Amino acid sequence: MKTLSILIGLVISANIFAQDQQIIKGEIVDLTHSFSEESVYWVTAKEFQLEEVASGLTDAGFYYSANNFTTAEHGGTHIDAPIHFAENKQSVDLIPLENLIGTGVKINVQDKALKNPDYLISIEDINNWESKNGMIPMESIILFQTGYGKFYPEAKKYLGTDKRGSDAVKELHFPGLSVEAANWLIGKRNIKAVGLDTASIDHGQSKDFATHVALMTQNVPAFENVANLDNLPEKGFQIIALPMKIKGGSGGPLRIIAIK
Amino acid sequence: MKTLSILIGLVISANIFAQDQQIIKGEIVDLTHSFSEESVYWVTAKEFQLEEVASGLTDAGFYYSANNFTTAEHGGTHIDAPIHFAENKQSVDLIPLENLIGTGVKINVQDKALKNPDYLISIEDINNWESKNGMIPMESIILFQTGYGKFYPEAKKYLGTDKRGSDAVKELHFPGLSVEAANWLIGKRNIKAVGLDTASIDHGQSKDFATHVALMTQNVPAFENVANLDNLPEKGFQIIALPMKIKGGSGGPLRIIAIK
Ligand SMILES: [Zn+2]
Ligand SMILES: [Zn+2]
Repeated sequence: MKTLSILIGLVISANIFAQDQQIIKGEIVDLTHSFSEESVYWVTAKEFQLEEVASGLTDAGFYYSANNFTTAEHGGTHIDAPIHFAENKQSVDLIPLENLIGTGVKINVQDKALKNPDYLISIEDINNWESKNGMIPMESIILFQTGYGKFYPEAKKYLGTDKRGSDAVKELHFPGLSVEAANWLIGKRNIKAVGLDTASIDHGQSKDFATHVALMTQNVPAFENVANLDNLPEKGFQIIALPMKIKGGSGGPLRIIAIK
Repeated sequence: MKTLSILIGLVISANIFAQDQQIIKGEIVDLTHSFSEESVYWVTAKEFQLEEVASGLTDAGFYYSANNFTTAEHGGTHIDAPIHFAENKQSVDLIPLENLIGTGVKINVQDKALKNPDYLISIEDINNWESKNGMIPMESIILFQTGYGKFYPEAKKYLGTDKRGSDAVKELHFPGLSVEAANWLIGKRNIKAVGLDTASIDHGQSKDFATHVALMTQNVPAFENVANLDNLPEKGFQIIALPMKIKGGSGGPLRIIAIK
């Protein structure tokens, strides 16, 4: 009866304070790296540049600061919209927000991936998570922790090279998601989106970007250069991933957070 | 006793399905205009420009599209970080996420503002909302619907002028928030943030940007060029406003949504 009263008490207070209450409860974890000239970009992409327009007291007597910036869509913590690798699929402004908000799952493969920068996340890694935690809820957002996030933004360790330009592409070494695991997650768990703490959902040595193609052909977006995954549990959190709404964009800067 | 059983039932099912369940429930409303060459920018600011880098089949046989872009921090649907008008206050990357997520309130002043493009939202407008809806919950996010959002991106109607450059500043006519109402909301309701469906939280004819200064000196950010406010009720919704995380930025592109 004591339990009953507590339950009823909770329901009643929730009702009384409904207007004041946060529907969104829990600790907020920012999974986003900030954009600066240190941000990690693909070795062939235009890096982030900030141009100061104003900073200081104006003639009118008030303080004012403002900047312009230039960037590739794909750099820093960002989203790959389906159209990045699949013709006629969703551009970043047309991804349904429902696909960017939902139950999060973190699959930690860092024990294997930190030993092998060409590591490919496998169906077995997903099965291992399910053996321990139960079935991945349908329509989840899956985040992979490779452990490489801790090297960001040090290119040599994070990407495998600190060279830039097209000659550097062959020197990229970092883990990624195997195309088999991507197809399994789409087919068996109807996932909304995937993300990870490396520069690309395909591993560094990929030549055909088969994982990008598999995901994006099915309108599944990917979050890249995700930060702070060590602050998340394996389950029991929600993801809110809101990209800059670029009309027709193939991706763009992403602010991604978890509520745990 | 029937009520009791229902309540207990609800609590138990919530518990059983906790893992599968969305904590974030409700209809998502996107309050964001998309960025394109049509986006509305301040008459003196650098406008949004997209540069196509790739779009089509690659030699390797897969489809690939990517772009670069250039923009002012302040244009389209964006946030003003406190440092935009207050020295040493929060830059956009340092605004606590807790201040960008919370209970939303919409104050609709369009009946007055559509008749007067120099309209200043007053303490009386806020009192009228409270007379009808009860006290604004402490630490809410306040959105003002001036009605000008329906003119976006038609500069002549939205800003009062379609001229650009410093000579156009004096021709800006659109409503804004009075400094008295801003100070009242900060002092009496400890608001987290404000937003509206015009290009600036100060009205177009402002010369001293007193409302910006009042808000930002108190670390209260402002959301500008907010979209789709007619899809929100006066209360009973949550706001999630996630800006691009520009290190040291005075503001930046904002993806703002409501859950209603
Ligand atoms: Zn990308
Ligand atoms: Zn602004």
